[in-house]
Amino acid sequence: MENLEKESAIAQDYLARIAKEAEAKFDEHLPPVSDRPCRLHEAMRYSMFAGGKRLRPGLAKATFDMFGGKGEKIWLATSALEMLHTFSLIHDDLPCVDNDDYRRGKLTNHKKFGEATAVMAGDALCVQAFELMGKTGDAQAIELLAHLLGTYGMIGGEMTDIECEGKTVDLEIVDYIHYHKTAALIEASLQVGAMLAGADKKSIEAIRDYGRSIGLAFQIVDDILDIVSTTEELGKDAGSDIEKGKATYPSLVGLEKSRERAHELYEESLLALDRLDCDTSILRAIAAFIITRVK
Amino acid sequence: MENLEKESAIAQDYLARIAKEAEAKFDEHLPPVSDRPCRLHEAMRYSMFAGGKRLRPGLAKATFDMFGGKGEKIWLATSALEMLHTFSLIHDDLPCVDNDDYRRGKLTNHKKFGEATAVMAGDALCVQAFELMGKTGDAQAIELLAHLLGTYGMIGGEMTDIECEGKTVDLEIVDYIHYHKTAALIEASLQVGAMLAGADKKSIEAIRDYGRSIGLAFQIVDDILDIVSTTEELGKDAGSDIEKGKATYPSLVGLEKSRERAHELYEESLLALDRLDCDTSILRAIAAFIITRVK
Repeated sequence: MENLEKESAIAQDYLARIAKEAEAKFDEHLPPVSDRPCRLHEAMRYSMFAGGKRLRPGLAKATFDMFGGKGEKIWLATSALEMLHTFSLIHDDLPCVDNDDYRRGKLTNHKKFGEATAVMAGDALCVQAFELMGKTGDAQAIELLAHLLGTYGMIGGEMTDIECEGKTVDLEIVDYIHYHKTAALIEASLQVGAMLAGADKKSIEAIRDYGRSIGLAFQIVDDILDIVSTTEELGKDAGSDIEKGKATYPSLVGLEKSRERAHELYEESLLALDRLDCDTSILRAIAAFIITRVK
Repeated sequence: MENLEKESAIAQDYLARIAKEAEAKFDEHLPPVSDRPCRLHEAMRYSMFAGGKRLRPGLAKATFDMFGGKGEKIWLATSALEMLHTFSLIHDDLPCVDNDDYRRGKLTNHKKFGEATAVMAGDALCVQAFELMGKTGDAQAIELLAHLLGTYGMIGGEMTDIECEGKTVDLEIVDYIHYHKTAALIEASLQVGAMLAGADKKSIEAIRDYGRSIGLAFQIVDDILDIVSTTEELGKDAGSDIEKGKATYPSLVGLEKSRERAHELYEESLLALDRLDCDTSILRAIAAFIITRVK
């Protein structure tokens, strides 16, 4: 356990450093508030700069570097990935979807700017992400990213999550929701980093498997934290899963078994990294961070 | 005038023929209803198959052929363009945006499937469009398309349109809204068709200028029809612009001057085509259709 904490500290340092660089690029890659439509640009920036771990940019950059990627194009991808993540959060928070008032301790986009602007701000971030991805020149990475974002990926998971609210569901459905809602974009972030670095097919497959494992672990830990943390610690409404009748791991198998499962997934993620013959230390550290994080 | 009607008939035949082929491809390119999340796939298909002129696919295909494009990839783009158009209509119809109950004579997506599903169906169509564009292998076309779709294009126009409701605006703002809301995606459709065919820079510029002119003309005619047609003829609520206090051409300069402006834009579109040394007859016919259409 002590070792896990050491690893986690390394990951947090790394992520904090990359977050700073990535955020400077967000500023470059987002339209200025002085350009028309000003309020929409303000709304896009509000949610993009509302904090967060910047996990997806961190994963993409770590993978790109690990596979010897060179040049500036990775920063186009890190901005695109965070925009896509933010787009999904803004639309998920809408009154007709999850109806959340707070996110990361701040008012949600529609609470601050109104619903119409929030719908458009999400749309605009999604489209802007693909413009940036277009600039990378890698159409294959775009195809993969869109696939893992669409109805066979993130959006499919969100939709099923909404449809299952208040219903009795089994572990197969919860796994489906977790994999699609959360793991798919994490997997995509890693694969896009690898593709932009020119990694070979076997390496991309190994990194995909790592991403699937840490992505599922990430969501299980999220569900655990929703139960054991306070709203203040989380920066969003704690206990909201139970209140909304969301299908979660702990609600089906209990807290202890959920923790065990997260640890199993951690071990699996390391096995996937063992298939690579480069220095995987940062990704190992990030996996440790994911299962030990407290917010 | 008689000549315009002849041209328009040619265009309508052409568009009807392409629509049929394009719709068969939509069916291939949309996820089946039997796949999870079934209801979301149903909602996406509902709006994609709710009719319409399929103008954007027609423009892309005509341009692709005109510049000697070969192969199947144009059909990826025609599906993507119609998905993007449909995505914008679904989100525009939402209660928090334009709050429309009918579109093309059928219930709008949120009226049929509920708001949460309509938000997600729009999102999913947008993302699916970029997956298809990724498959074309043309990252530059993706960048251009996303640019003309984002806050400096279609979404920028929609947002400004919403913000100006009920306000007194001048012709500069109406031109801004029309160009961005409508002409940008029409221009993009033509340019994507040209890029996929491998057209040179000068040709792409000429086709862009043609697109800008017919795009603006299209929206002016739309505004005129909103006043002079009945709801039954239009398949959507007639007179809704006035009711919502929308900024339109006729509301600022009157019907007669609006018709004159549409005709001027028609002439300008033909001048742009004169810069090309290939057979532009289909695009000429489509321009004539755009200013003579009655729905």
